[in-house]
Amino acid sequence: MTYCVGLKLDRGLVFMSDTRTNAGVDNISVFQKMFFWEREGERSITLMTAGNLATTQAVVSLLNERALPAEERGEPSILEAASMFQVAKLVGETLREVIKEQARNEGPQAEGPFSATILVGGQVHGGDPRLFLVYPEGNFVEASDDTPFFQIGETKYGKPILVRAYDPAMSFEDAVKLLVVSFDSTIKANLSVGMPLDLHVYETGTHRNGVRQRIEPGNPFYETISSGWGAALKEAFNSLPTFKFKDK
Amino acid sequence: MTYCVGLKLDRGLVFMSDTRTNAGVDNISVFQKMFFWEREGERSITLMTAGNLATTQAVVSLLNERALPAEERGEPSILEAASMFQVAKLVGETLREVIKEQARNEGPQAEGPFSATILVGGQVHGGDPRLFLVYPEGNFVEASDDTPFFQIGETKYGKPILVRAYDPAMSFEDAVKLLVVSFDSTIKANLSVGMPLDLHVYETGTHRNGVRQRIEPGNPFYETISSGWGAALKEAFNSLPTFKFKDK
Repeated sequence: MTYCVGLKLDRGLVFMSDTRTNAGVDNISVFQKMFFWEREGERSITLMTAGNLATTQAVVSLLNERALPAEERGEPSILEAASMFQVAKLVGETLREVIKEQARNEGPQAEGPFSATILVGGQVHGGDPRLFLVYPEGNFVEASDDTPFFQIGETKYGKPILVRAYDPAMSFEDAVKLLVVSFDSTIKANLSVGMPLDLHVYETGTHRNGVRQRIEPGNPFYETISSGWGAALKEAFNSLPTFKFKDK
Repeated sequence: MTYCVGLKLDRGLVFMSDTRTNAGVDNISVFQKMFFWEREGERSITLMTAGNLATTQAVVSLLNERALPAEERGEPSILEAASMFQVAKLVGETLREVIKEQARNEGPQAEGPFSATILVGGQVHGGDPRLFLVYPEGNFVEASDDTPFFQIGETKYGKPILVRAYDPAMSFEDAVKLLVVSFDSTIKANLSVGMPLDLHVYETGTHRNGVRQRIEPGNPFYETISSGWGAALKEAFNSLPTFKFKDK
């Protein structure tokens, strides 16, 4: 499994992904699930993947190959697409193409499709920052004021705190803290989500990649939040009024 | 879906279940998922169900029929079983029997088995209070000091707070508060879990059913916790140190 979150804030976009991949419980590896494309001053695009690793790596490789300036293939490029909507469309088409290719009806067959889901967000000059959730079928939905964040992968454990503490006006620092709490809750509950974590903060209007950081196991901030959150939760719990039984 | 939790405390057992059943999103009903058997002074047994409603109702009906004193069928009865282990074994065998019966190879067939999972706990005179999670295959596991609570149904949203705030020495009042927080997080995130909630508190050594209460929508305590928890969480979140970007 996997856990990735994209947050849309007033001041920009914040992305966080884990790096654990597993086939069963005894084949565990670290793979990057966050990828970037940039034309400084013109566009910054961040993409995060969940699902079959062969599929998502093929999608990213294809997007990269087709973005090479040397080759004039006539194929659409993620660095040329005119808007974030066109970027999401391109990602969706590439994802659909890869899954279709791998499921073709000859040779050895897998039991299910090698499916995947993708979050892609960023800003292309002339447009607002936008965040999309792309489905294996190639279609996609966009984050809005009503639903200002997307999660993919193992989403349930870390959702309640996002729902409660997210605020579009929050600072980037608070957003990172929120994501760390959400990831920590997930990592504590599910073996298939693991450190290190990748972080990217995109600031609206810069049209360049922002702060990128890998949060390694033992990262002091992560450790502080992880141990502090338990105590803070208990305190929050104790601050609520106590239940009283009817008949007492 | 469903959400049920059984907590094993130093002073007894606490059970909570929701009451929503759904087939798709437009066929929603309220059904009790918590059932009781009692011989005052000798045993108190609580059972909670998740899964196919036809299956779980059949299991409960069979357990009830076979507990009727009038009939001397020679079949084991939940009111006669010599220990909680034997009770769990009986529940497992009955569950397995019902699923097997419904899956027999004639007439119309469903796509999957009409599966179900059951939590059963209580105390039989001469033994300690015990709590079991019974699988569709009829086998079961018991709650221990290391894993002192079981959840069935839609378990993920409400798990982080249970993991963080559970304490075997907690009072019944705090345990109910904890369950309300866990249920509220789940209900806020998942349409298939819904009010009202059923509650049963069993006190070790009493060998009789304890406080039973139905928490209806609009229950003042539930409302206080539900609205207060958001604010308490935000405060807990704010009490943690702020993230600092490396390069700032």
